[in-house]
Parts: sequence; structure tokens; C-alpha cells
Amino acid sequence: MRVLSGIQPSGKLHIGNFFGAMRQHLQLQADNEGFYFIADYHALTTNPQADELRQRCLDVAMDYLALGLDPEKTVFWRQSDVPEVTELAWILSCVTPMGLLQRCTSYKDKVAQGLSPNHGLFAYPVLQAADIVAFDSECVPVGQDQKQHIEVTRDIAQRFNNMYGEVFVLPDEHILESVAVVPGVDGRKMSKSYDNTIEIFEPENKVKKKVMRIKTDSTPVEEPKDPDQCSIFAMLKLVAEKDELAEWREKYEKGGTGYGTVKKRVVELLHDYFRPYRNKRAELEDNQDYVKKVLADGAERARAVARTTLDKVRDAVGMGGLD
Amino acid sequence: MRVLSGIQPSGKLHIGNFFGAMRQHLQLQADNEGFYFIADYHALTTNPQADELRQRCLDVAMDYLALGLDPEKTVFWRQSDVPEVTELAWILSCVTPMGLLQRCTSYKDKVAQGLSPNHGLFAYPVLQAADIVAFDSECVPVGQDQKQHIEVTRDIAQRFNNMYGEVFVLPDEHILESVAVVPGVDGRKMSKSYDNTIEIFEPENKVKKKVMRIKTDSTPVEEPKDPDQCSIFAMLKLVAEKDELAEWREKYEKGGTGYGTVKKRVVELLHDYFRPYRNKRAELEDNQDYVKKVLADGAERARAVARTTLDKVRDAVGMGGLD
Repeated sequence: MRVLSGIQPSGKLHIGNFFGAMRQHLQLQADNEGFYFIADYHALTTNPQADELRQRCLDVAMDYLALGLDPEKTVFWRQSDVPEVTELAWILSCVTPMGLLQRCTSYKDKVAQGLSPNHGLFAYPVLQAADIVAFDSECVPVGQDQKQHIEVTRDIAQRFNNMYGEVFVLPDEHILESVAVVPGVDGRKMSKSYDNTIEIFEPENKVKKKVMRIKTDSTPVEEPKDPDQCSIFAMLKLVAEKDELAEWREKYEKGGTGYGTVKKRVVELLHDYFRPYRNKRAELEDNQDYVKKVLADGAERARAVARTTLDKVRDAVGMGGLD
Repeated sequence: MRVLSGIQPSGKLHIGNFFGAMRQHLQLQADNEGFYFIADYHALTTNPQADELRQRCLDVAMDYLALGLDPEKTVFWRQSDVPEVTELAWILSCVTPMGLLQRCTSYKDKVAQGLSPNHGLFAYPVLQAADIVAFDSECVPVGQDQKQHIEVTRDIAQRFNNMYGEVFVLPDEHILESVAVVPGVDGRKMSKSYDNTIEIFEPENKVKKKVMRIKTDSTPVEEPKDPDQCSIFAMLKLVAEKDELAEWREKYEKGGTGYGTVKKRVVELLHDYFRPYRNKRAELEDNQDYVKKVLADGAERARAVARTTLDKVRDAVGMGGLD
């Protein structure tokens, strides 16, 4: 199945991103034909500085490649290197009812927050629809919050097909269930907006410092503790083997183990877990020409597919050859 | 001065279009560097059939070439052959406040008329802005009704320049004063929406029939008539030489001349006036490959200019080379 995925170039990845959705996301590569792109046209809606945007694209490319994106198998490119999608977005705009976009909650939320939105933010779902149909995507893995946008895409694609003939594949959404809710260092859900994250690629000593500072309750060392109410145990669940996890559960319930002891083990396990990725990331950092080449090759492959779709679309609406 | 003009591929031109604005429009070629394009991306907002859209583009190209558009001097192309403008439109969308588009009266009018608008109609001024700035246009001749859209363009271009550096030339509008209000066959202003038009290129016998049916008052032949209240005299003004016009004015004021006599002369003069254009139009109709070649050459010239602008824009916002 052809799986399309847009990746926001929005800064440092944290372990909440990784265990929450990204890991499943990368696993989809195995049995599918992946088309993964870095959504820099979409990122423009937040008006980043030019250098910052370029750097973030390169960073997120290195992150994904380090974490297992396989560029031999998966087509991986930067969105703006395939500008065909913007032309397609214009054409789709002309079959997109205003009401459909006005009902999009992600836009309404921004207005409700008192943001003064730009038109790109409003038109966002149309460009997203163009991204999806340009590559004949059958499946789009998204979080629950993006479900509506996939429905909008289906609606737009269906309208186009009704008006101009069957050109587009209608995509299905694939909701990425947040398998694990990863707690942040303050006990709330790990999230950049809470400023409570542990980044995947930050230096090991920083990771250690953050884990050691995780809030715990004041149960004395000798007393039993409830593992299911404990942020540190929640982290153990992510990185410990089954048997080891069972031992820790026992220790929690029996009492006599301090949170500091568990924290130290979590740090070790996190280091072990991410070390190969971290090493790979460092290699890529030293070999950025390779990363750029991956993206350039991916763009070429992606562009060929988008071009084919766009030629069909242009023909269907009365553009292209005048004969 | 570089003059940009978008031409709607919206069907048969009538003499009201010609004397109202198009003639001055074509005269601008003489002292300026003209960039004239057929706005088929914009036309998509009305969802024409594919064959119809292609045919209308070809028709309007032949109309303009017949009426004096000089493709050696003026760059003349079909909008969709330079898709760079759609990419630019996306980028501009991200610096365009929603409020700016929401205030556009042409969109508000359509909503007020009870139309259920598509997003293309709403985003129309952004694509128009992209068209204008893509070609470093200094001057955009428009009717009074399009003045607001040029102001929107200036606003968007200015915002971009403020945010990302001076990339765009700010265009001035050049209001095409309707030198002559041409009456239609029912005495009201000639307009497609009143169905009272005389087309430039319809067969001469049809033109004759329409002129002969123009409504006049019931002043008897022998009595004096007011030339300034007469639709037929208004047409004479468009096509008669000064001396002849003075003679007709005298005849009107003296009495003794019937409207039928004047109508016959109007028909002759209209035929004389448009005959060279009509002949040229027929030649082009027989030589459509030439017309297509003109548009293809124009697209190539236009595209080179748009490409240069877009490269600057992409660099300014952080797209293009990752180094």
C-alpha cells in the first residue's frame, strides 16, 4: 500500500514523539511503499526565518534517517523541491467549497486562540489534499487531530472526480494510536508546549540530569509504591525488557527501593536504547552532503510521480496542449 | 514601463469591451513593455468544461492578436503555461492576512448574491498578486472594479518585503477610464449580462440586424432630434470621423433625418472599422498553429522572468539550496 506522510520541520524531536507515534510511523515502511516528505511549504505558515527553515529541514532529515527511515525503500524529500503540489493546490481550490475549510477545527482553534491568521493557515488543508492526491496515496497515517483534514481531502478529491472524471485515488486515514503516553519531566504528558521534554538527540549528561529531576511523590524508600502511578516506571515500560520490567514492578510493590535507584536505571536504559540512533545521527551530521543527496534523489523520484498526476489533472480541467 | 494585464477567457468580445477599455489597453503596448496573459487559472474558479476552457483561451488569443496585440513587442501567453505563479501564490498566502481577503468586495458581492463560493474565488486576489509581482510589473491597467485587488497586491508585496527583504516591485494601478460608454441595442450600457451586445467578430449581417433594431424614441422624421440623447448617435461618435460627425449633429438638430438613415450609416462605418480586424481574425482562424506558437513562445519568455523572481523568493524564505 502506498503510505504518505508529511513531517513538520518543527525542531528537536523528543522521546514522547518517538514512542508516541514516530516509531509506528517508521515501522509502516516495512510492508508499504512509503512517501515521506518534510513539509516546508506548510511550515511557511508560521513565517520562520529563511536560515532557520533550511536548518530545521536538514535537522529533521537527519533525525529521520538516524531513527531508521530507509531512503532506499522510502521516497524521502523536501516538499518545496516538488512545487507541482502548489499548482495542484490551486486547481483543487477551485473545487473546494469555502464552507469545508471554514469548518476545519484546526483553523477555528487558531482563531479562537486570538491568533490573527494568514491565508496560508486557512488554505492549509487544500495543500495537504494536493500532497496526498499528487502521489496517489492510499493511506495517510495521522494523529487523531489530523483526521478531519484527511476527510477534507477525500471530499475534495471526490468533488474533483465527480466534476472532471476519475483522476484521484481516495485516501484512507490510518490513525496512529498513541500506544504510549510518555510523561514529561514534570509528570504531565511530554510536550514541547509544556517545556517538559527529553530530546532524543540531546547530550547524554543532559538526559541524565533531566531524568534525575523527574518529580516523584514523597513515599519513603522503605514503603511500597504504586508503579502505575509513577512517571519513572512509565519510562521503564518504554525501554526495559519484559523480565526486567517485572522485577522492577515487584520491587516497587515490595518497598525498599528508592526512586533515585530506578531513575539511574532509566538513564542507562535510555542511553542504551538511543545510542545506535545517536551514533548514526552524529555520522550524518558529519556527512551532510549525503543527507542532501538523499533528499535530492527523493525529490526526483517524487517529482516524477507528481508530474504524472498533474498532467492528468491539467488535461482534465482544460490546461496543457491546446489541440 | 512594464505593464501587466490579465485577460479573462470569458467568451465573445463586444464593441462595448473594445471602445470601453480594450482599445486603450492595446494602445499601452506602444510605449511600454507589455506582459499580457490569458488568465485560465483564474477562469477555473467558474468550473468550465475542459474543452470549453481550451477553446475560449484560443479564441481570446485570436481576438487579441486580430485586434492589434503585437506578439513581437508584447509577451503574450496562457497563464497555466507558467505554473510558477501558483507556487508564488502559496508563498504569498503565508504573508496574507485573512482579513485582507475577507474585505475584498468582489468576493463579498458573490457571497451577497447567494453564490456558494469555492476557495479559488476567495484566494483569487492572492493569485492575482502572484501574477503581478512575478513579472516585476510596474503598472497594471484595470477597471475601477479591480482597483481594490491592486491595493491588495501592494499590501501583500509590501508585507513580504518587510518580512523577507526587498524582493518585489510594488505595482501601480492604472485605471482604464471608460472613455466611451457604449450603449447596447436596448439603450442600456452594452454588457453581456444585459444580453444587449454587438460582438466584434459576429457576421456582418448579424451586426446589421442588431443595429437596425436599436431602440429609438418616436420623434417623427421631420422634427429636430437631440443627438446627445440618442444611442445611435453615441455609436456614430465611436466610428465616424470628426467632420462627418459634425454633419450628423447638424442633421439631427435641423430635423428631416430619420433614425433608419443614421442606423444604415452606423452599420457601414462599423463594418469599415472592424473589417481589417475581422479579416485578420479569419486568417488566424485558418492558421491556429501560428497562434499556438505565439502563446508557446510567449510562455517561454514569461517563464524565464517568473523563474528569476521565484528563485529570489524561494531563497528569501528558505527554500532552494540547502547550503
